[in-house]
Parts: sequence; structure tokens; C-alpha cells
Amino acid sequence: MTWPQSSTSIHTYLWEFLVPENGSFDFGTACDQTKERFSKCLRCSVKPLGEEIICDTFSRRSFIGEPQAVISLRWQKPSIVTLNLEVPVQPHSESFFNLDTARVIETELRKSFNATRSKVLPPLKRGGPVDPYRYLNASDDRLLEYDVEEVLADVQSPFQKVEILKTKNFGNLLVLDGLQNLAESDIVYTETLMHRGTIDYMNKDVLILGGGDGALLWELLKEKPSFVTMVDIDDVVMQLCKKHMRSACGTALDTYDGPNYKIIVDDCMKILKSYIDDKKEFDYVFGDLTDIPVSDAPIGQIWDFMKSVLALSLQVLKKDGKFLMHGNGVSSEPALQMFEAQLAKLQVSFSRSNAFVPSFMEDWVFYQIWKTNSEVHQNGLPE
Amino acid sequence: MTWPQSSTSIHTYLWEFLVPENGSFDFGTACDQTKERFSKCLRCSVKPLGEEIICDTFSRRSFIGEPQAVISLRWQKPSIVTLNLEVPVQPHSESFFNLDTARVIETELRKSFNATRSKVLPPLKRGGPVDPYRYLNASDDRLLEYDVEEVLADVQSPFQKVEILKTKNFGNLLVLDGLQNLAESDIVYTETLMHRGTIDYMNKDVLILGGGDGALLWELLKEKPSFVTMVDIDDVVMQLCKKHMRSACGTALDTYDGPNYKIIVDDCMKILKSYIDDKKEFDYVFGDLTDIPVSDAPIGQIWDFMKSVLALSLQVLKKDGKFLMHGNGVSSEPALQMFEAQLAKLQVSFSRSNAFVPSFMEDWVFYQIWKTNSEVHQNGLPE
Repeated sequence: MTWPQSSTSIHTYLWEFLVPENGSFDFGTACDQTKERFSKCLRCSVKPLGEEIICDTFSRRSFIGEPQAVISLRWQKPSIVTLNLEVPVQPHSESFFNLDTARVIETELRKSFNATRSKVLPPLKRGGPVDPYRYLNASDDRLLEYDVEEVLADVQSPFQKVEILKTKNFGNLLVLDGLQNLAESDIVYTETLMHRGTIDYMNKDVLILGGGDGALLWELLKEKPSFVTMVDIDDVVMQLCKKHMRSACGTALDTYDGPNYKIIVDDCMKILKSYIDDKKEFDYVFGDLTDIPVSDAPIGQIWDFMKSVLALSLQVLKKDGKFLMHGNGVSSEPALQMFEAQLAKLQVSFSRSNAFVPSFMEDWVFYQIWKTNSEVHQNGLPE
Repeated sequence: MTWPQSSTSIHTYLWEFLVPENGSFDFGTACDQTKERFSKCLRCSVKPLGEEIICDTFSRRSFIGEPQAVISLRWQKPSIVTLNLEVPVQPHSESFFNLDTARVIETELRKSFNATRSKVLPPLKRGGPVDPYRYLNASDDRLLEYDVEEVLADVQSPFQKVEILKTKNFGNLLVLDGLQNLAESDIVYTETLMHRGTIDYMNKDVLILGGGDGALLWELLKEKPSFVTMVDIDDVVMQLCKKHMRSACGTALDTYDGPNYKIIVDDCMKILKSYIDDKKEFDYVFGDLTDIPVSDAPIGQIWDFMKSVLALSLQVLKKDGKFLMHGNGVSSEPALQMFEAQLAKLQVSFSRSNAFVPSFMEDWVFYQIWKTNSEVHQNGLPE
């Protein structure tokens, strides 16, 4: 763990005000009012910092107030005023400035500016021990703040950055290269991916590509398959999940050679090719790998990887077998459509499901894909 | 709607870097590196703005780059460097600076600063038509960004600010005074509140206090109660939900006088008192009102209101009746404990449930409360 365990946080408060377009808003007066309000609530003298910018389209002025608070007021003409406060907060001490204070400032300045609307955001936190971990993105790059209590793991494996965060809302949360992967709260993810209750795995031969958190393997084993093979390239993920994601993976990762399963630590492409050579076939293949990429076009390394995995997986599927995978968030519909356009080029049919996955804080899309020329499914969608 | 329909957004990017504590980090050099990187990616000359601050505990410098971008670098000694970029984005135009660019800057500056870690957040957006609506808080004031596509309603009623936002992930979302109230995605909220499947409402007499979104009324009516009375003070909420939250409230709000229900637009305290005077009693009373307040102590206007509602509700409950209410997020455990300490002062027993409510993006706690002296329940928890 290289991030300091106890260091000053920088809290950044951001306000916005909607001011009249009729010219009644005066930036100079607003600066005076801002200075006065902050002098009062920071209990120190607030003085101008640097030059004022006045141009056709915007005006801006900064102020400094002890202790080390920097305030910036910006007027984007004609009607938007933004206000920023950047203030250090010592570890383990109550900040002298908090969201309640920020709301009072909001109300007072809204009145002073004759603003018709205003908004203040909870502070953005940087520098403290868990601060770099608390912000993650939704699939469409919305900003989400997590209630991280402790960083259980932060390791660079040979393949990716592996973090496990202890959260209040989601239990322990596995984050790979900055993307939420699975939390202990997310049984719905696994159950939707495997279509629990609608697909019968009894005595079936199943292959999992990826799935390093162990949750899919653990839940599948409860369904009495004949055998499950899991191929994940990153042993660091599995070792950390075995330790910290126990309520999700059970004992599935305790041994890599179970009575009715095995875990292979290797590149799934290589293993898929060897199965094709050996004419080995499966009833179900799971692609529990990377998300469908959110990109402008279906090109690039991750798209190539996905297309290859899909093509090879279809080759190791029995005639009436199915390829099951997760997609991306419903907010990223263009990415999903791009993926479906790729599917249309193959001789496959597919169906879509979705479920709200707690730790993703969004509705996630899952796919079932099967060969169109399959006799079993030629008369329509299965299920 | 008073917020402009199409105005410039101000996007604020925030980075943080962890730099060595051994004195090898030089702020002046870092400023030059920052200036150079931004000159390149903003494709303009970036020059210093105002005075540099150098003090014992922190250093700070701002820069300005056309068009109207303001960059600030802060070194909170010994090891935290924060970087802010504030840049205007024209409506309906791709920004020349985006999160991908920000990530490139992150990688380049991490190397230049010899930082051991770094992080950049998706841009905070202010000024655009939906920007003030997209940020809401979790119960513990974490910042959450919603995928708001359209603002369907933004009205100040005599009692509260009523907003209905169209979102991709949650359908339409009702927000009262800035708090997520219910979205079309949130059937789990209503079902957990009413303990669907474990409480039998058939032929029961039910009172709903609040519940203006109509969802609880709609779901209860499916359970064949003898009669449901709902008392909500704010007709604006009901009229707007009737129009925009149709998948949640069905036709329940179309008429306020149904065959087996009525909706009273009034103060629930007043109505409760009149029921007490008339010795009217109910099998179930729902408190679908305000959240349990997150405060330092169980005092203040909202606590007084909650305590009064609870005390009066217990008086209109049949001996074996139940009071059912929602509480707050699991992240706000101190508030929940404060509430439970209040319950301990009354002659009641209670149980807790929780469910992850999609549009709240958090795990929410619900209570069942019943009179301890009830003969039916004296031997333990019901259900």
C-alpha cells in the first residue's frame, strides 16, 4: 500500500448559481459579497489572490483565506456563476467547514446574487487514506462516491490493478483496473448471468472463461453440473478473493482441483484453442471477462479480444449449447448496439436480460447467445 | 423551469497525485511540467495567472489557457499534489477536452512528478440545462451522479420542492427537497416497506401517512384490503406523480375516492388526532413520510414531527396492529440507532429489514413497530 495512511485531505466544494441575464448581476459586487460571506464563515480575513480576469465571455477572481483556503468565483456570461472552495482538512478532526456551512453559504449568496437557482455539491475529497479509492465511475463515466471504510488490497498483478475495498453498502468490493467487478452484495449479478431458475445445469459440462472472483463457480456448483472448468489468467485475483470475498466465492477457490471442477490459471484463448484441437465440447460457456467496451467504433484491442473469445467459444459449444456473458450498463446503449451488430454478422441468435447490480449502482445487461443453425432453437427463442 | 435550456457548462476536472516525501518533488518544476502538458493538450499557450503561493504547508499556482481554461496546481506538503482544470463546454458540441484526455494528462504527469499513485475524476458539470439535477447525495452525503435525460417537473409546492427527472437507469425519479423519494425502478422499496408475502392485508383496514407518489397505495390495493385511507398534505406531488410516475402508481391517483380507498389532502397530524377523538382504529398504519433525520442528536423539528406521528399512530393502531415505516440508509447507522433509542422509550417492539433501492443507490432500512403489551405478540417477534 503506497498511499499514505494518514494525510491531509483537500476538500473541494463546488457551487453553481443561475443569475439574471438582464445585466443586473454585477461581478464586482458579487466578489465583495463572496469575500464577506467567506470571511465570516471561515472566521478569518479573506483577501484577493492574483489578478481578476475580465473578458467578453467570462470573469473570474480568486481569494485566499486562512488556513489555506482558496476561493474562486467565475461568471460565465450571461447567467452562470460558479464558485469553488478548496480547503485542507486534517485527519481525524472535524472540518471547520462542512456541507451544512456550504448550504448556508449557498442560501446567502443566492439571495445576494439575486440568483433564481443554486446548487452546492458535497465536497470532493482528495489526499486522505481512502480518498483515491472512494470515487469510481458508472459505465457512462458518471461519478459515483463509495462508502469505503478500508482498503483490504491494492496490488498490481502482472495483468491488472487489483483492489478490494471494504464498503458499508456492498460488503467487500473487487475493483479491477478501476472498474467495479463484483461485491459481496451482488448475488443478483451471478444469478442473472447464469439465468438461475431457467437454465438447468444438472449433469452439464460447463466452461467459465474468467470468473476469477469465484462467485460464478461457487453458485454453479450448487446446481450439480457434471463438471465445471474455469480458466482465469490472474492468480492474484483468485488468491485475494479467496481471502476477502468469502461470502461470494465460498470455498470454491480453496482448491483448484475439486471433485467436479478444476481451475486452470492460464490464458483462456490458448485453452480454447487446445479444446478445439481436441474436439472437446461444452453445454455452456461463460464469458465472465471484460465488459463490452464503450468506444466510438467496434475496433481496438478489447474488441478484438471479445470477438476472438466469442468465435472460439462458439466452436467449443455443443450444437444446442449456449454462450452466456455480461455486457455493460443500460446507460451505454451505443456500446451494446455495437456489440449486437457484431453478433448479427455471426450465425447466432441472442437474447438480453438485465438486472440492477448494487455495487455497480446501475442496471446491467447480460446476453445469452446460441447458434442459429441449432435444431433445438430453430423455432424461436429458448425459455 | 427557470434553469436555462441551453447554456455553457463549466466542466471541472480534479486530479490527485501522491509524490515522494523525501524532498525530491520540486513545485517549480512541477508547474513548468503542468504548463507544458496543458499547452500541448489545450493547443494554446498556457500562462501563469496571478501570484504563486509558497508557504510552510502548501504551495499553489494557477494558469490560464485559451479558451477560458483555468488550471490550478496545489502541493499540500509533504506528499499530496492536487490539480484542477475548469473549462467551459459549449452546448451540443464535443468538448476538446474529455476524460480520455484527462487520463493521458494523469499518466504523463504521474511520470513527470515521479508520483507513486494518481487519480483523475470524471468532470463535475455545472451550468448546463440538466447539470443542477444530475447530482444527488446518498444519505451519508456521498456524491452520486445520475443519468438525467430530461427534467419533467421542477415545481415549488407550498410544502416542498418537487422535481421529477427522467433517467435511463431508474425510469422517472421523484425528488423532494433534493432527496430521492421513489423511482419507477423501485418496486423493491414498496414491497419491503409493506413486507409483501409475509403480511396479509386481505380485509384489513389500512392507513397511509404520506405516500404521495401513490406506489404504496397501488400495491396495497392489489392485496384486497377492506379499505385504505391515504393522507398526504401535498397535492402537487400527487398530481405530478399521476402524470409522470404512472408505472409506479398505476391508476391509484386518478381518483381520490375509490371503491375501497380514499385520499385525503391534509395534514396527517390533524387527521390522526381526529381519528383518536373518534376512536377509529386501523390494522396497519404506514409512515411513508420523511426519512429518519441524520443529525447529531434526536432533536429539532423533524425529530419532533417523527415522534409525534409515531405516538399518535400507535394510538390509532388496533391492539395487534403494526406501524410500518422506512428509515434511512445503512450508511447512516448512527441515525438509525438514535431512532431505535427513541423507540426503546416507548412500550413497543420492533424489527428491521433492509433492501437495496436502485434509485437511492444504497441499502435502505425499514421498520415494523408494534405495541409490546399486545397479547398477540407478547411471546416474541411476529412472522
